[in-house]
Amino acid sequence: MSILLQNAPEQEADSLPHLLARLQDRTARIGIVGLGYVGLPLALQCSAAGFPVLGLDIDKEKVGRLNNGQSDIEHIPSRRVAELREGGFEATVDFSKSGEADVLILCVPTPLTRHREPDLSFVISTVEHLLPYLRPGQLLSLESTTYPGTTAEEICPRIEQAGLRVGEDFFVVYSPEREDPGNATYGTANIPKIVGGHTTACRQAGVTLYGQIVETVIPVSSTQVAELTKLLENIHRAVNIGLVNEMKMVADCMSIDIFEVIDAAATKPFGFTPYYPGPGLGGHCIPIDPFYLTWKAREYGINTRFIELAGEINQSMRDWVVSKLVEALNSDGKALRGSRVLVLGVAYKKNVDDLRESPAVEILSKLLARGALADYSDPHVPRIPKLRQHSLNLSSVPITAASLARFDAVLLLTDHDRFDYELIRQHARLIVDTRGRFRRLDARVVSA
Amino acid sequence: MSILLQNAPEQEADSLPHLLARLQDRTARIGIVGLGYVGLPLALQCSAAGFPVLGLDIDKEKVGRLNNGQSDIEHIPSRRVAELREGGFEATVDFSKSGEADVLILCVPTPLTRHREPDLSFVISTVEHLLPYLRPGQLLSLESTTYPGTTAEEICPRIEQAGLRVGEDFFVVYSPEREDPGNATYGTANIPKIVGGHTTACRQAGVTLYGQIVETVIPVSSTQVAELTKLLENIHRAVNIGLVNEMKMVADCMSIDIFEVIDAAATKPFGFTPYYPGPGLGGHCIPIDPFYLTWKAREYGINTRFIELAGEINQSMRDWVVSKLVEALNSDGKALRGSRVLVLGVAYKKNVDDLRESPAVEILSKLLARGALADYSDPHVPRIPKLRQHSLNLSSVPITAASLARFDAVLLLTDHDRFDYELIRQHARLIVDTRGRFRRLDARVVSA
Repeated sequence: MSILLQNAPEQEADSLPHLLARLQDRTARIGIVGLGYVGLPLALQCSAAGFPVLGLDIDKEKVGRLNNGQSDIEHIPSRRVAELREGGFEATVDFSKSGEADVLILCVPTPLTRHREPDLSFVISTVEHLLPYLRPGQLLSLESTTYPGTTAEEICPRIEQAGLRVGEDFFVVYSPEREDPGNATYGTANIPKIVGGHTTACRQAGVTLYGQIVETVIPVSSTQVAELTKLLENIHRAVNIGLVNEMKMVADCMSIDIFEVIDAAATKPFGFTPYYPGPGLGGHCIPIDPFYLTWKAREYGINTRFIELAGEINQSMRDWVVSKLVEALNSDGKALRGSRVLVLGVAYKKNVDDLRESPAVEILSKLLARGALADYSDPHVPRIPKLRQHSLNLSSVPITAASLARFDAVLLLTDHDRFDYELIRQHARLIVDTRGRFRRLDARVVSA
Repeated sequence: MSILLQNAPEQEADSLPHLLARLQDRTARIGIVGLGYVGLPLALQCSAAGFPVLGLDIDKEKVGRLNNGQSDIEHIPSRRVAELREGGFEATVDFSKSGEADVLILCVPTPLTRHREPDLSFVISTVEHLLPYLRPGQLLSLESTTYPGTTAEEICPRIEQAGLRVGEDFFVVYSPEREDPGNATYGTANIPKIVGGHTTACRQAGVTLYGQIVETVIPVSSTQVAELTKLLENIHRAVNIGLVNEMKMVADCMSIDIFEVIDAAATKPFGFTPYYPGPGLGGHCIPIDPFYLTWKAREYGINTRFIELAGEINQSMRDWVVSKLVEALNSDGKALRGSRVLVLGVAYKKNVDDLRESPAVEILSKLLARGALADYSDPHVPRIPKLRQHSLNLSSVPITAASLARFDAVLLLTDHDRFDYELIRQHARLIVDTRGRFRRLDARVVSA
């Protein structure tokens, strides 16, 4: 038996100890599938840990840019991609190369369909593209946010149908990404990594992998626990933002400044965590992820009422903000139609360039549809590209005393630090402020 | 004019500078109205700061006990009340003595009526009891939790009708209590104190008062802001507990341990704050306060939907817990009727003796009403006194191996640290656990 093994390294390759050894000495090749906001930082981190890294993506242009050492993510400088290339990284659209990888980490999008149901098509098609090349001894980790049961019900059965035995000669874990683009303190390296395995052996492989790459690994008892953990984090945010948006509307009726109230409450040293209102939720996570649980819960006959309510309130903020702008213009005797309105900030959150699900884009569209002469200014977004549901074709207007004075109102939606708030305060004719940046300055400021 | 003033110190007494001086040199006499969970710790703190303190309450027995140096609050030892007495403190039911006080701080209950509407009767009747004795130069501070507008709409007009001019010869502030009984880190002295004044002069008086008594004072721009601040803090808690209770029910259907999920999510170093599920909300604040805003918001035609939903979910937990117990007994072939059930913990939260609004009391009643032979054990509550809506007439059962073995099930509702969990684990026949204390121990544990 031992002689046979010595003569047959291909056989040995499918054992867990072999994989663990290659992870521990960092010779295992890591294939990262999906090279976006999650996959690219992860590729950098794996490479920094000394692993050979292969990048897989279906987007030929992105693959070309990365191979040319160019980043298309604002907070990742091209210099770091160039260094990654020099470290041996290669990006490819050829999924047959996945067979060369010992580890496959899936970082593909999990959006919603137009009917607000989970769209697993990127996950499923990625698995199906990989299937012909999967081989014994590999570890597959899904990082995309999804509902509890996805790994066990959608990933593992497909792998087993291809003849591999999950937990014996192939290993599957779920380990949710927790990226927070623009966060200066926490990134891939120092955000603790949750790992749930399909079996104990799977979990051991996953914990060993991520233990080489990030500072802290948190093993949990199942892929379902890991899946629900990520959803709970984002449900918590969506609901707390929904709550504070509702509180903003209540306080507004009572002529109370909600930002002052939140700041005062935040002085309580226990039991309170401040969340801030805004023009609605944006980004690729918070407005979307919670509904993955809503959909799955229906299978058990349960409604996720907090998620539904938060979605409803957060979605309604767009119209509420527009109505506050209409009111403010009306006080100046102006209709929205024909008024010149400058939207400040179109990214979904401050200090990033990301337009995904940004409420500002939808508010801009609403303003234009109602006849406003609307423009925008965003130091992070020089122009608004054609998006799935919008084709605005606008470019960022530089902010100057003269340009500000041309507008009947400015509408602050995303409070980037790069804005010159003092200049805006001095020269804007009317300020409608959804972020509490200008509050209590003077009569020209309306909170929304 | 200056001669007149020198000859008429009674006239001088109504000026703000005179009051401020007496606050600053701590000669001002502080009258505290309502000597319960809020008023008594505050009296201790005022006395510790060197102020002469007068206690006013309508409860003759309480006044008698305090004057005898006895505490009726578990976490305040009688020794401290005795020291308070030695420091010159006196409690009285005679409201005419309030005229001797320079400051009147109202710490009276603000419960809900049976129809879940604000019950301001204690506040209003207190003010009316004080009215005949109010005099120029006094500062009145309301600390009771209430809706925005209470101080301006209910307190100030009554004072002005009595001939005093608020902001000129009489001063009114709202400064919410933020007590957290059982909190070993934060108490009256080091919890920052929010102060909103009816006028700028009022606020100055309030800030000066509390600046002598507590470490940090947070002035806000109005009594309404201060009122909403306290409500927001407790609404935040009620909603987050409601959310996690809903998540518990969802996770339960999916056979996922919600406590494991929460602990895993809590490893995220930003953007997530853990809240824990339980058998429903209790205490004198969290289940009650939010509905003060709900009621006031209706005046403006707005619904506070998160508050309503949280109330509904948190209230429903009682029945859900009972149904989980019924299911667990049923698995053992037993009906609830005739089964011996031991409820562990009846206080509304751990390590306190407070039964107010405790879901455990209601669950105990439900069990008895359905024919269970129910008992309870609580090291902090030797017997359950007659409460407004219950007359259980039960005494705490000591926990021993033998006593545990007599029960068909134990139901953990409040996880006091003083319970011997290992003894319970060893000897209980069936454990229904609403606090995640026994999870994943063995098959005899059912989470609820």
